[in-house]
Amino acid sequence: MKAEILATGDEIRSGALVDSNSAYISQKLEETGVEVTRHITVGDDKNILVSTIKEISQRADIAVVTGGLGPTQDDLSSEAAAGAAAVDLVLDPQALVSMEVFFKKRKHLMSVSNKKQAMLPKGALCINNPVGTAPGFSIKINRCTFFFLPGVPFEMKKMLSASVLPQISSLFGHNRQYCMVKTISTFGLTEAATGETLADLPVKFPGVKIGFRSKFPEIQIKVYVYGKEEQNLLANMEGACEYIHGKIGNKVFSVNGGSMESEVGRLLADKKATLAVAESCTGGLISHMITNVSGSSGYFVFACTTYSNESKMSILGVSKNTLNTFGAVHEETAKEMAKGARRISGATYGLATSGIAGPGGGTDDKPVGTVCIGLATENKEQGVRYYYPFPTRSMNKTIFAMKALDILRMELI
Amino acid sequence: MKAEILATGDEIRSGALVDSNSAYISQKLEETGVEVTRHITVGDDKNILVSTIKEISQRADIAVVTGGLGPTQDDLSSEAAAGAAAVDLVLDPQALVSMEVFFKKRKHLMSVSNKKQAMLPKGALCINNPVGTAPGFSIKINRCTFFFLPGVPFEMKKMLSASVLPQISSLFGHNRQYCMVKTISTFGLTEAATGETLADLPVKFPGVKIGFRSKFPEIQIKVYVYGKEEQNLLANMEGACEYIHGKIGNKVFSVNGGSMESEVGRLLADKKATLAVAESCTGGLISHMITNVSGSSGYFVFACTTYSNESKMSILGVSKNTLNTFGAVHEETAKEMAKGARRISGATYGLATSGIAGPGGGTDDKPVGTVCIGLATENKEQGVRYYYPFPTRSMNKTIFAMKALDILRMELI
Repeated sequence: MKAEILATGDEIRSGALVDSNSAYISQKLEETGVEVTRHITVGDDKNILVSTIKEISQRADIAVVTGGLGPTQDDLSSEAAAGAAAVDLVLDPQALVSMEVFFKKRKHLMSVSNKKQAMLPKGALCINNPVGTAPGFSIKINRCTFFFLPGVPFEMKKMLSASVLPQISSLFGHNRQYCMVKTISTFGLTEAATGETLADLPVKFPGVKIGFRSKFPEIQIKVYVYGKEEQNLLANMEGACEYIHGKIGNKVFSVNGGSMESEVGRLLADKKATLAVAESCTGGLISHMITNVSGSSGYFVFACTTYSNESKMSILGVSKNTLNTFGAVHEETAKEMAKGARRISGATYGLATSGIAGPGGGTDDKPVGTVCIGLATENKEQGVRYYYPFPTRSMNKTIFAMKALDILRMELI
Repeated sequence: MKAEILATGDEIRSGALVDSNSAYISQKLEETGVEVTRHITVGDDKNILVSTIKEISQRADIAVVTGGLGPTQDDLSSEAAAGAAAVDLVLDPQALVSMEVFFKKRKHLMSVSNKKQAMLPKGALCINNPVGTAPGFSIKINRCTFFFLPGVPFEMKKMLSASVLPQISSLFGHNRQYCMVKTISTFGLTEAATGETLADLPVKFPGVKIGFRSKFPEIQIKVYVYGKEEQNLLANMEGACEYIHGKIGNKVFSVNGGSMESEVGRLLADKKATLAVAESCTGGLISHMITNVSGSSGYFVFACTTYSNESKMSILGVSKNTLNTFGAVHEETAKEMAKGARRISGATYGLATSGIAGPGGGTDDKPVGTVCIGLATENKEQGVRYYYPFPTRSMNKTIFAMKALDILRMELI
């Protein structure tokens, strides 16, 4: 059972709009056990639409098409489907009624141009749109069953889950193939090194496929298991994940695609511990990441961005002597910042960063990419220096923040 | 001159990742005057890759392919290109040297699997990658010149602008049509309202096309001017931009696609003023945004995330009475936070947020989406409440932070 996805519209073709619909539909189809083999995007051009639909109709069993169902002249999907199927457009009574109900509910008058939306290819089945004006439809052309949906993500999603996925499931009968996907998040190895470490996995686990995704600065390992028996899939998946964990060790920070900050949050909450952060070069990013996690107010008590030496002294109590002797970017300074954040907030852990994110500010001794990370706990205070040679300020801030959170995670596990 | 874009990778095909590369490349090609007719996405499957490349080679003049150039087993683009062109893979000395330079600079050892990345189809020309390990390449197959680039957006963008677009421009010869694009960034109107306000622009300015892009929570207005004479383009563009500015007013915050935070930074620097921020619901995001701007240490002195009432009192000096009477989310609290941030840091401006980003914590009186924004200056202290009904914590944090920065911007202009 092979599926393709067709996104239509000049705004997507020309790049004015990023198409997020196709990724969403792919995920849902793969979860249903349908393999998506191809996405295509074309513009609002009737000839191209007709030929693309014909091409798909000879290659795929299922196709989901988005866009082009609106009331204006550049909405051509019904016409194009009729052209590809070599049938006429006819007024669909169910489509018309559902549109009338929609407008009545909202006490709006239906305009003449909306009536065009009820003209469907002969033989098509209307798909109700409970949340918008454009009805969808399904039609079989050659070997392929097409589902035409609106391009508005909100409407598309509703209709996909309410009508399309159930219909696709019933098309399967007993021929269903399952697919299970897991995302393992790692930090600290390059993509190449991760790949080499796991090179023999496909030999050891037949039926398991892995892929790598660089989501800077994480490397995610995607594990795909295919098969007809749900039970076997689960065992295969567990075996493969255990193997990966054994090979990559504690550089794995999440086995369900979770973020570093939610993993750190979970560990803090488990220990009933709290955290305070003092940031210089990361400029609030660690605080932002931690507070992206819902419920973080349970363990996150305080953060400050102290860019100037004055604020490092007056707010955090970093000693003048330390700043004069070693400078703002130094292990000792980072350590005193972490200690200060912990002291003034009463948190269990204090975490601090001081470094040079660039593009300016680097020296021979402390080049752009240098970061000192401080950690203060009940039992110890430490400051450690790292060097990451990334080319942009934003990448440096990101890797500095991730490294700081990873150091805290290592302390917590 | 017709172009197609091919995105490769199981993570995109399966929907685990939204492909934003293709939209970016489309925009850049259209700006260069090349019409993009189709985007295609396929997975990491050699046979499918070969047949898709062959298919494109007979239909398009130019193709940009992203992904599949990495060091791991699922990186198949070079092999597939060689298969489609019916040539062997050979070690490319230029590619190897550029990789060796990259690793040497970073004092890393090049691993064996990286060497695979220097194997290019015979006859291909290496495209230097100044910011990553994977070299790209170009190769002509049938009527089409293919440009193979990495899938990592940062690397792809650098190589596209440094190597690919200049090569495509030179392929054009004198047949060139100019296209000028400008991005006007606005905040405070919906996309529909922006569109309605500017509905008569295409009539008033023939040859000018506008498009809208929602980059939450901004609405960007893309202004495209086409023509064969560069001079006319400039006059047309200036007229259209002036017209847009007149209609949208000070909801326009940048006329060159700049960010809100860089605009605020520019205004602060112009006034030789400084800023301190006290955040609750935005959790460090305002600080992170401001410090994303290089040179922000010149005007940004201090920020804190004070989640707990204790830290609002002890760090910022918010009065116990205010917190007891009005609660943490209130105009008065936000005002006192802004005042406190300004006082303890000595900054010219103090800016503060306190609100409910959700998903939990809302009440009938103060539902999720409520934010109070405080501003303290030499002459005034104010706190104002807003309500934004967005569905996610991350969207709420983002719009709260933007609104706070916009309030400061309005004060500064």
